[in-house]
Amino acid sequence: VSILAKFQEGDETALAKVISFVENQSDGYRDVLKRLYPLSGGAYRIGITGPPGVGKSTLVDRIAALFVEKKQTLGIVAIDPSSPFTGGALLGDRVRMQHLPADRGVFVRSMATRGSSGGLAGATKEVTLVLDSFGKDYILIETVGVGQIELDIVNACDTTVVVLVPESGDSIQAMKAGLMEIADILVVNKSDREGADRFIRELSSTLELRGETASWRVPIVSTQALHNEGQTELFDHLAAHAEFLRSNNLMEANRKAQIQNDLLSLLEKKIRDHLSVEALNSSSLERVTEEIFERKVDPYTVAENYFNELLSHKTT
Amino acid sequence: VSILAKFQEGDETALAKVISFVENQSDGYRDVLKRLYPLSGGAYRIGITGPPGVGKSTLVDRIAALFVEKKQTLGIVAIDPSSPFTGGALLGDRVRMQHLPADRGVFVRSMATRGSSGGLAGATKEVTLVLDSFGKDYILIETVGVGQIELDIVNACDTTVVVLVPESGDSIQAMKAGLMEIADILVVNKSDREGADRFIRELSSTLELRGETASWRVPIVSTQALHNEGQTELFDHLAAHAEFLRSNNLMEANRKAQIQNDLLSLLEKKIRDHLSVEALNSSSLERVTEEIFERKVDPYTVAENYFNELLSHKTT
Repeated sequence: VSILAKFQEGDETALAKVISFVENQSDGYRDVLKRLYPLSGGAYRIGITGPPGVGKSTLVDRIAALFVEKKQTLGIVAIDPSSPFTGGALLGDRVRMQHLPADRGVFVRSMATRGSSGGLAGATKEVTLVLDSFGKDYILIETVGVGQIELDIVNACDTTVVVLVPESGDSIQAMKAGLMEIADILVVNKSDREGADRFIRELSSTLELRGETASWRVPIVSTQALHNEGQTELFDHLAAHAEFLRSNNLMEANRKAQIQNDLLSLLEKKIRDHLSVEALNSSSLERVTEEIFERKVDPYTVAENYFNELLSHKTT
Repeated sequence: VSILAKFQEGDETALAKVISFVENQSDGYRDVLKRLYPLSGGAYRIGITGPPGVGKSTLVDRIAALFVEKKQTLGIVAIDPSSPFTGGALLGDRVRMQHLPADRGVFVRSMATRGSSGGLAGATKEVTLVLDSFGKDYILIETVGVGQIELDIVNACDTTVVVLVPESGDSIQAMKAGLMEIADILVVNKSDREGADRFIRELSSTLELRGETASWRVPIVSTQALHNEGQTELFDHLAAHAEFLRSNNLMEANRKAQIQNDLLSLLEKKIRDHLSVEALNSSSLERVTEEIFERKVDPYTVAENYFNELLSHKTT
């Protein structure tokens, strides 16, 4: 409680403690989230995603430096994909923010994804909420874009930046197509690589095929984050996209759609927790499993029965 | 109904129709699954996964040819990752099974993943069930191993083969670690590539670190699928793993665990469908969304209320 008081006074040590508290889902963390929620909504959330190894971290550092220059406070959430089995982060700790002057309102948090979602951790949204309610102007969410994460990041951000590198390998094609669909801004990093021009032309034609949505034209920005090139242009496009959303009332509409998604996720999670404990861990589960294994009954019928039982007392 | 009769007589055209019926979730498809379920359980299911571009399809073709040689019937399910937004397959159609003699009991089906799971399609399990109940001896499930799919494939197969290629790039590291954890057999394809020996040594040490599970030692098999090398060794390891599972009663234990996972998934899906229609699309949703957006109430409390309402008549 005294930590929350310090939190509301702007104490970054308290911020770190609250984030850990929420991230670890310590007892009472939902009550904390409920108390913080009314304070949130002021931060602009930018997602930065792309395949592994494209230089997202460096790019985030560059952009962060520009926000600092403009006297904007900043929260950075960097999400490492973790193994679904061990729960450990795969990419390990990184030395971050080497180029940022200390103590300029930038708060950095690295997280591992957890649990079965395999994507943007549920905790990510909650950590974002904490940073938002703390009063950060901007929140950068950096994550590897594979599979389901693509959808998660769209649902967690106002602007989504997809980072690619010139690369013709098969291994990137599958990811690329999915990623391009969610991009508000496309970045081609390491644009000094051979074949960069052709790569950008290809991206450009792919975008043409996709057509424009609501009159926002997805820009393709060339950067060389390692050599400090292109970040200012990216920064300007970020501002332009935010302005576009605001002036078309899309930010509000997007956020309301996100709220509805969140509600469904929260409700599903509650029901899943409930089910694991109550319905399936019941004494009958062993017997039913045995019967299904022996093909005496099928799982579809059993699931229907569980479902009807769950709701039977409801329909009156 | 007459199609099901033909299906049970072993008509492959009927098999194709039933698969389409189930895959498209046509009216009454659950009834079909319920009727087929008692016929299933005889097939041995092998998952073949790995990053894009490692040569999984070619390897599957080689293995398939060996099964045909041994007079085993075969179903092959090849899953292409599809965009979560358009639902289309990313990798497009491929010319498959070029090297297999026609009409030897091999049935091939390419599928796109669908829906929000982003992973192994729910339909994949169902298509596998259809092939199983048709009487195929073996089912090969080929899928790109990214993110959540890793867990899905473990839950859909008896033996999981992970295919990698000698490659030191960052872009593969993150995937690799997650994939190695689920491997019953590790394949290093394109083993004529430079650095293959070192790569295999690295994999080997990583496996040592992981330790052995239940006395199964994960073998590392070198292959060059394109040049017809190594598939026989892989085939032998597949047989050895199946024998290992059977002689340790692990196949039954694994399948029962899968049944419980399936039950939970089916139940969750039913509830999710129910929720989307009943709970959240209610007339109050618009109002609640507005209130959350304006920070008059928080989503955690709203979700709890929905949940309690849903179960309120149950607890008596």
